[in-house]
Amino acid sequence: MNTRIFYLNQIKDVLKNVDLLAPIEQGFVAYSQGKAVVPPIGELIFDNPPGDVHIKYGYIAGEDDYVVKIASGFYENPKHNISSSSGLMLLFDQKTGELKAILLDEGYLTNVRTAVAGAIAARYLAPSTVNRIGIIGAGIQGRKQLEYLKTVVACRDVMAWGIDERELAAYKNDMESFGFRISTTLSVDEIASRCNLIVTATPSQNPLLHAGQIKNGTHITAVGSDTPQKNELEPDILHKADIVVADSIEQSRSRGEIYQARKAGLLNEDNLVELGRIIANKKLGRTRDDQISVVDLTGVVVQDIQIAKAVFHRLQNRL
Amino acid sequence: MNTRIFYLNQIKDVLKNVDLLAPIEQGFVAYSQGKAVVPPIGELIFDNPPGDVHIKYGYIAGEDDYVVKIASGFYENPKHNISSSSGLMLLFDQKTGELKAILLDEGYLTNVRTAVAGAIAARYLAPSTVNRIGIIGAGIQGRKQLEYLKTVVACRDVMAWGIDERELAAYKNDMESFGFRISTTLSVDEIASRCNLIVTATPSQNPLLHAGQIKNGTHITAVGSDTPQKNELEPDILHKADIVVADSIEQSRSRGEIYQARKAGLLNEDNLVELGRIIANKKLGRTRDDQISVVDLTGVVVQDIQIAKAVFHRLQNRL
Repeated sequence: MNTRIFYLNQIKDVLKNVDLLAPIEQGFVAYSQGKAVVPPIGELIFDNPPGDVHIKYGYIAGEDDYVVKIASGFYENPKHNISSSSGLMLLFDQKTGELKAILLDEGYLTNVRTAVAGAIAARYLAPSTVNRIGIIGAGIQGRKQLEYLKTVVACRDVMAWGIDERELAAYKNDMESFGFRISTTLSVDEIASRCNLIVTATPSQNPLLHAGQIKNGTHITAVGSDTPQKNELEPDILHKADIVVADSIEQSRSRGEIYQARKAGLLNEDNLVELGRIIANKKLGRTRDDQISVVDLTGVVVQDIQIAKAVFHRLQNRL
Repeated sequence: MNTRIFYLNQIKDVLKNVDLLAPIEQGFVAYSQGKAVVPPIGELIFDNPPGDVHIKYGYIAGEDDYVVKIASGFYENPKHNISSSSGLMLLFDQKTGELKAILLDEGYLTNVRTAVAGAIAARYLAPSTVNRIGIIGAGIQGRKQLEYLKTVVACRDVMAWGIDERELAAYKNDMESFGFRISTTLSVDEIASRCNLIVTATPSQNPLLHAGQIKNGTHITAVGSDTPQKNELEPDILHKADIVVADSIEQSRSRGEIYQARKAGLLNEDNLVELGRIIANKKLGRTRDDQISVVDLTGVVVQDIQIAKAVFHRLQNRL
């Protein structure tokens, strides 16, 4: 078999013409139905300079491919003008083990599939009318989330929170080019009071949003926390919520917002549902506009499997 | 960083001029000294058709690179004229996470580094005079083992066991071109009675060699079993042996011949030594020609790290 090799510019180029929502929704459904084989995440941690490497791998039973994804973050790289994220995705044949394709995405597809999961969360759980989108965290993921929300939410009014005016000015400039009207704030409280669809996308290890700030009829997607340390939402928010959704209940036992709320004894297990079950049966999601809903995304390899397949098939058809 | 990509023909080409024994011996020593970071092996098992995938990754502290190796065996592939082994090796920068090189070795380097480990095992544990080499398993690994034994053992008389006459005729034909005199047999007992250096290289899940067959003064290198299921040696052989050597004592807790013997309650832990300790201190290995020694190779990522580095540096210097 000839292994096909694709570079980041080719990948970005075809992404414009690939529908990612449908396959990633299908991936979550397959995962929640137990059809996905998802072994524990492989991990390498470096201290000097600090860096972490995650190796996610698995497959959906009966499909053509299995996928291995390697993605790393070395947070001091930007000092040397090197991107903090690196990585690649590999597609192999499930029937022969042959390496079909190498996607040299440098971590880009991980950012995209995370944003797509945010869009899926909004599609199934946002109130019927979104009056304003609130983005907490004006970095790469705060950008990508908004880009992909555009495909599922009609609202174009956005309020963004960031760490300083400079970061927010750059965010406003970048995201207005996508057709959004962006206002900015340094007050999380303002986001909570004026937005009914809120996305948190920071690496914070201390809660940014507090239960007292959250109004009825608010949906929150928390994408920042994917480790046992990171924590964007005060656990009481999950206690107060009518619906709490995990991308993976299994993974949320050891990382993310649900992990934090459970640890604090503030998780009502009866309100906890897996995203794939809501996609398969919308009745398990939001049923009234005045409900509070929270989706906690820790990142599941089915997202990587589905995006790698979708991108590869599109690249293949172009050649 | 520009990722360098190398293909199998380029890799095979430089391998002729790379000394692999020294770096892989150093890798085993570093591993046994605790200098290597070797997380648990990632694994995917397929049933239909049967296949197993191993993801090995790690690094030696303070070096330049970390390595991820993916290698699979799909044993029904040859029916469709496809090699049973596939895979690749990836070298990343330990300081930035950047992907430096992709070695598209299709599993070849895994076969080679396994054969090199077999040669190292023989160098340190075979009796001083080898009268005949016995190879059990006339497949790819049975060929590679013999090829690399040539560099450390003077004996050129070989008896090979295989599953049928056709397989054995092909083996004899291929390996005589390396300068060996090959006789063949369908009786494992004949191998045990006539060879004092025996290599088992099959994916068998039932013991092929039994304790009653093993004469004093025999060395056995078991390379076939790298999972909890595979088992080439009756556990009583390890009980009977004077010296039992693991490439990794840690890994042998959950896979390989030592795992099987321990499970059967037939492992004398006092006789168990790690290969890297013997390389560093030969006195821990065979001390008399009439001893029975067993080396159980499950495959450690330090072998992959060392072969990937050696091959990459040689490829880089050619360009």
